[in-house]
Amino acid sequence: ITTSGASAAAIEKGNYRHFMQKEIHEQPIVVAQTLQSYLRPLEQKVALPDMDFSFADVPRITIVACGTSFYAGMVAKYWLERFARVPVELDIASEFRYRAPVLEKGGMALFISQSGETADTLAALRHARSEGQKIAVVVNVPTSSMAREADLLLPTHAGPEIGVASTKAFTCQLAVLAALATKVARDKGVLTEAEEREIVGHLTEAPAAMNAALGQDEAIEAIVPLVAKARDVLYLGRGPDYPMALEGALKLKEISYIHAEGYAAGEMKHGPIALIDENVPVIVIAPSGPLFEKTVSNMHEVQARGGQVLLISDGPGLAEAGDVVARIEMPTVHPLIAPLVYAVPVQLLAYHVAVAKGTDVDQPRNLAKSVTVE
Amino acid sequence: ITTSGASAAAIEKGNYRHFMQKEIHEQPIVVAQTLQSYLRPLEQKVALPDMDFSFADVPRITIVACGTSFYAGMVAKYWLERFARVPVELDIASEFRYRAPVLEKGGMALFISQSGETADTLAALRHARSEGQKIAVVVNVPTSSMAREADLLLPTHAGPEIGVASTKAFTCQLAVLAALATKVARDKGVLTEAEEREIVGHLTEAPAAMNAALGQDEAIEAIVPLVAKARDVLYLGRGPDYPMALEGALKLKEISYIHAEGYAAGEMKHGPIALIDENVPVIVIAPSGPLFEKTVSNMHEVQARGGQVLLISDGPGLAEAGDVVARIEMPTVHPLIAPLVYAVPVQLLAYHVAVAKGTDVDQPRNLAKSVTVE
Repeated sequence: ITTSGASAAAIEKGNYRHFMQKEIHEQPIVVAQTLQSYLRPLEQKVALPDMDFSFADVPRITIVACGTSFYAGMVAKYWLERFARVPVELDIASEFRYRAPVLEKGGMALFISQSGETADTLAALRHARSEGQKIAVVVNVPTSSMAREADLLLPTHAGPEIGVASTKAFTCQLAVLAALATKVARDKGVLTEAEEREIVGHLTEAPAAMNAALGQDEAIEAIVPLVAKARDVLYLGRGPDYPMALEGALKLKEISYIHAEGYAAGEMKHGPIALIDENVPVIVIAPSGPLFEKTVSNMHEVQARGGQVLLISDGPGLAEAGDVVARIEMPTVHPLIAPLVYAVPVQLLAYHVAVAKGTDVDQPRNLAKSVTVE
Repeated sequence: ITTSGASAAAIEKGNYRHFMQKEIHEQPIVVAQTLQSYLRPLEQKVALPDMDFSFADVPRITIVACGTSFYAGMVAKYWLERFARVPVELDIASEFRYRAPVLEKGGMALFISQSGETADTLAALRHARSEGQKIAVVVNVPTSSMAREADLLLPTHAGPEIGVASTKAFTCQLAVLAALATKVARDKGVLTEAEEREIVGHLTEAPAAMNAALGQDEAIEAIVPLVAKARDVLYLGRGPDYPMALEGALKLKEISYIHAEGYAAGEMKHGPIALIDENVPVIVIAPSGPLFEKTVSNMHEVQARGGQVLLISDGPGLAEAGDVVARIEMPTVHPLIAPLVYAVPVQLLAYHVAVAKGTDVDQPRNLAKSVTVE
């Protein structure tokens, strides 16, 4: 028998109607907890657990995961390439195993899983080990199989996640992965000490920004009627917001059974825009910044074809974007922490739509919390 | 003024109701034409145009494209990694440009576009060139901007494609990419002469196998009622059949306006399976072979939740799979050419569903043939 660190209180719903709702609202706290074990606030440095290899020697990183964890991996690829300039290969676990991946000697393979037991991901881990890769894992259960088989264990401190649709485990994964990307960049000598301090500063602000995002709960509830009546919904984003579009769509699918799909905003015009009419709401995730103008131009293409746009952006973005059917305002944050912040409104929207539709939010049909079969 | 090689006959519909239908049925001929310029049948060898660099020196290949061409790139990644053991990075053009990709010195970047003018892909090409990559392009218009800016021009010989939804250009791209993967593998010394002969033999059989697939036209028309009434459809596949699932879904979206989505079969249980009920047909693309059993097990999960499965497989696969709502039989082919063959039934299905729904097949709403804006 292993005793989990979770107190009884942590696995009760408290004042919340569903575990998922509670877990969404816990995020600022558990992300702060998670960051605490990876950041040294006084020195403004990132610190990872001891390890027997150096990131400086890693020529290439392979990230493998499933479902929501895969989308965390997409963000990590973006961060690792941008900050650490290390090429990252990303794959779905069930695909990775069977596609004869080319793994570079001395490479590191990174596996992401809330439970640490996901069958496809675990099998992929063992395949990567047999190919001589160093194994790093980001898991929420430090006693899990993946944790035990890792060379580098990077735990999230989300506490037990009861809702089947992952929320707090996801944002804690992002927090760990941001710290990891920073450390890899430092070890590879492509990030200065000053830049590291700056990143640590931004990460430290993430929990407060997530709290501000949670403050939009009522505004998000107000747009539920626009989405709940739809049978199909599209989510659009660019760069690190593209995985947020995918994750938003997955959340809505999982708990409201609405057929939502995430797309890279620039891909819309290569086919999916044919779907657009006034019955398909399009949720655009676009913080202001260098990619904003391009995404807004894709948004205008959607509107020109009768599409109803719900825009999630920050003050400057909303001011610049022009007319939309509905808008959700996020705090203005550094692009680095935007994925942590923009995860919150897409979770809240899926949650409230599911409640409006009367589905079993914590135990959606057909799904298991931890998928231990292939 | 440039005169295209196409005769007047080639841009008339002939006995077909739509250009798309004509172009689907032309595939065995244009794929054979395309292969003719890449294969030397007597020596059973692959021959590419002259080039001023050697694949032996290329440490990594980056493939960039949009829409259907992107799915051809997914298959190419699979082939290049499996046969040539060269790591391949694959990206959507509109994402590639803005994500600070890490491009290895001496690497080759490969761009795929029917028109050779796709704005996002062309901009990505110029970015890759500025980063010192060797530029290869697979285009159907040899006078296009991409063709002119390439170090290695690999034309498809599909003839003019009039239907907005790409069909014959796609399978011709696959034919060229299979030849390319074989040549890279030979130059890298990881494929023997005997293996090359074997691959060339299989490729040579592709047009006849595609013809046999076209022979299922009536059987496919017969299942249209199952799909045309649906508002949402899922397509599942694994390995090189996963891009076929994505392409099948894109085709259906583009011309029938049904919200179809493609998924890696193993990802279903990580969320999308929540969508499954008796109103969402699930189209499974699964030739017999090493991945078959896994896909069938995913298919059974779908069926256990009330999902209606339409299975596209070959004789041995259909015999092994058990009961399904509808089945489409493909010829039994070598896994290498399966993508070329299985593209046909998903095109035909989308075509017949669109006709049944009365949409404008050749000019679907909201779409342009060549997307020359970003």
